[in-house]
This record gives sequence, structure tokens and C-alpha cells, in this order.
Amino acid sequence: MKWIRYSCGNTTSYGILTGTTIQPVVGDPFHGYEVTSKQVELKDVTLEVPLIPRTFYAAGMNYAQHVKEVALRHGIDATLPTQADIGYRANNALIAHDEDVIIPADAGEKIHYEGELVVVVGRKVKNVTEADALDCVLGYTIGNDVSERDWQKLDRTFWRSKNSDTFKPMGPWIETEFDITGARTEIRLNGQVSYAFDTAAMIFGVAHFISRMSQYITLYPGDVIWMGTDGSSPNIRHGDTVEVGISGIGTLRNRFVRAGA
Amino acid sequence: MKWIRYSCGNTTSYGILTGTTIQPVVGDPFHGYEVTSKQVELKDVTLEVPLIPRTFYAAGMNYAQHVKEVALRHGIDATLPTQADIGYRANNALIAHDEDVIIPADAGEKIHYEGELVVVVGRKVKNVTEADALDCVLGYTIGNDVSERDWQKLDRTFWRSKNSDTFKPMGPWIETEFDITGARTEIRLNGQVSYAFDTAAMIFGVAHFISRMSQYITLYPGDVIWMGTDGSSPNIRHGDTVEVGISGIGTLRNRFVRAGA
Repeated sequence: MKWIRYSCGNTTSYGILTGTTIQPVVGDPFHGYEVTSKQVELKDVTLEVPLIPRTFYAAGMNYAQHVKEVALRHGIDATLPTQADIGYRANNALIAHDEDVIIPADAGEKIHYEGELVVVVGRKVKNVTEADALDCVLGYTIGNDVSERDWQKLDRTFWRSKNSDTFKPMGPWIETEFDITGARTEIRLNGQVSYAFDTAAMIFGVAHFISRMSQYITLYPGDVIWMGTDGSSPNIRHGDTVEVGISGIGTLRNRFVRAGA
Repeated sequence: MKWIRYSCGNTTSYGILTGTTIQPVVGDPFHGYEVTSKQVELKDVTLEVPLIPRTFYAAGMNYAQHVKEVALRHGIDATLPTQADIGYRANNALIAHDEDVIIPADAGEKIHYEGELVVVVGRKVKNVTEADALDCVLGYTIGNDVSERDWQKLDRTFWRSKNSDTFKPMGPWIETEFDITGARTEIRLNGQVSYAFDTAAMIFGVAHFISRMSQYITLYPGDVIWMGTDGSSPNIRHGDTVEVGISGIGTLRNRFVRAGA
């Protein structure tokens, strides 16, 4: 089942997407809902981010090739993380499918994509075992963890390198039936595949992250966990379009525009 | 004016506190409100955190003596930050005035307080000058940025060292008339002053942080910015009570309890 969040006129609602038809609901998938008898066509609405997260978690380095590329860029030895330490991103940076990423006018050239699986938490959980961890998951969506590498190296935190407004595209919807087994993440730059990897080839998997986080942190409905990316990115330029596709979920597409260009 | 958020029975509301009397409102200070004609006594309600932040920003190292203490602890030279790079904390960790900080059973002995001024944003702002920056501030409250120093050193992020459940006491209320000039932050351990400093003696002030953040980030009503602490903390033990007082705002008090002790 696909949960979609969309605007039509001045109203933003959740609905269930089947093919190209949306069945609107009253309420939301986190706190309860009732299906209405209406029908809306996908082409007649504007997609919104599938949720505004309660807390926006991000695994950061969680695929081996990406860790190697990061080490290469910084001129250091590649060291794989030895434990699942979750990080954070910020809601101000979220944009929906088909909205533009605005590169700040003073940003450098090293604007990079990171295509990621996003876990959407549906139930409150604390102290959960790995075996039971996935029971709290409502579904999965897709994220693009856009990064400005000069600021990432220069600044003490990720505040503008990863959290400048529009740097966190997320969508297009939440897929509740996603099976990670055999899934592929494919990143396309202006229609051409630029990188692809096995979505499940994580250093620490979804169940492990949830279980470990929950030993110290209560997870709540509406929390999201971005699971990291593999490989590297070319420099993205004004006018480029980046698509992140994950088989079994869909494709998140955004154009990049440099402010003042 | 003091904005208070409180529970009475099963209802959580905002109110305006005068002396020990609360005048409840319908709505909230961020999106609009109407004052009711009721009156409730402070002693008859339970204080809640003054708000659940939209985004939870934290300056981290922003007072000189604290930077020196951190450097000493890590055996490195003290280097003052050269630019205002904002960081993040997480909502799961928030607790109110008089709620208990629960030290996880497997935490080390180095449990430290950090008493901080908290800025509460009341209006949406982007690209604001330092001269106009404070216009977006609704008021100020108090935070205790509780930290577990072994995890802070060991982990790749601050997820459990600073964001374990209950590690972020905030309150007791939002003071809209606070003047930082001459204000003192005083931290008391079991009733004895253990550290005190000039609240305004920041490396980067409130207006500078807001202006700089807003060049890249849209600030929204309900965002909070924790402004950092000065000095150091003794190890806080099971049963200890920590009070963070800021003159002109009030006092935030919390007891520390070790899980399983």
C-alpha cells in the first residue's frame, strides 16, 4: 500500500494511492484515519513530503564503498564504523518530489547527491530486540541527502553542508509493502544511471539500528531514519535533475537550481 | 510575561503566569490564542516542557571557559570556535521542570550538567540582519544539556551521550521580557552553587547566531536555540538535584536517578 501526502487547492491530506488514483482519508496513518468515498487523480494534485518527521534521524556512513570514497576525499584511511551511531538532519531542509533543490549562491562546486532508503516509524517503541524491531515500521520512502562538501569539511557541524533549506528531498510516498531483499537503489543524473547499489548491503541493517537506538531513545510514530548511501556523486550543477529510484518503492526526482544563476 | 505550558487532568494547555496564578488561553503563543476568563493555581497543575520544538538547535561550544575545560578533558589545545556553527539535539530527550533525569544503567560516572539560555523563536525568518534578528524571538527559557562524557568521546555522534531519553530538561516557562544585559546563570547542585557565569559572555551572541543561521536556514515559530554553557560540571550521581537559574527568567530543577539503582 502507498501512503501519499498531497495538496489540492489549500488543503493538504493523506490518501492511499492505487495506480494513478488517490483515495483520500480523514486523519493520517500515524494517529488513525478513515477512508473517504472520494477519488482524486494523481495528476491533479501537488505531492508534499510524505510526513514532517517528529525526529529526523540519519545513519550517515552505512555502506562500505561510500566510507572509502569519503576517506579518499579527506586523504585519510578508510575505517568502517564499528557501531551503529545514529545522527540527525533538520526539517527545514525537507522538500517534496519535483520541488527544486536551491544551491546557495555562495556554495562551492562540490554539491553531491546521496540516494537513501528512508524508514518511517509507525509505532512507539523502546528497548526492542532486533527480532521484533521491524514491527514498529509503517513503511519506507526515499531520500536524497544533498551535501555541500566544502562546508562539510570546514564547519564544526553539518548545519549548512547538509541542512540548508531544500537540501533534503524526501518522497514520493510511503510504501508499506517494501521488501529490501534484492532491492536496488539506482541514481540517475539527467536520465543516465550514475550509480547503483544493493539497498540491503548496509554495514548495519534497519533492524539493528532500530534495536540499538531503542536501548536509549524512545522512537515515536512519525520519526524517520535515513539509512545512508553507497558510492560517490559527481558535482551537481545548475539545471541538473537527479532521480533516486529504489525498486519496490518508486522514484524521487528533483531539479537543482543555483540561486541567482 | 511568562508563557507556561501545563497539564491539569488529561488536558495540556498554554497559559499566562502572573505570580502563582495561571490565566489559561485557547491556542498557543506561536499560532494565535485567546485569553479565557478562567484562573488556575500553579500548585494545582503539572508543568510541561514549554514547547515541543519544531527544530531543536544547540550552539554547543559558545563560552570560553567551557571550551578550555573540554580541551583539558580531551588532552588537546583549547581552540575557540571561529564561526557560529549551529548543532542539533533531539525532542525524545526533553523533560519538564521537576521531572527526573534517568541515567541509563550502563552509563559511566561522568554524567555532567550544562546550564543554558534557550531562545524560543516566535516568527518565521530568513536572511535577517543582526540588527533585526531579535525581532523573531518570542522569549527565553532555560535548558540543561545533560551529557555522558564517555559516550560523547566514544561515539561518532551525540545520539546517546546527549540525546538519551530525559537528557534534555527544559523550562520552567518562556519569559518574553528577559533582558540578557547583566543576567547571571547559576547552577546549584543539591542546593549549593557549583558554577555561575555571565549569561551574555557568549563567544557568538543570540543575534549573531540567528542572523547567520538565517542565511541558509528558514527559522520557524517553535524552533529553539540552546546557547551553550560555561565552565564544567562535577560528576552527577544518583539522587542529586541540579538547578539551573537564570536571573530574569527563573529556575529549572531536576533530580537525577540511575536506572536500576
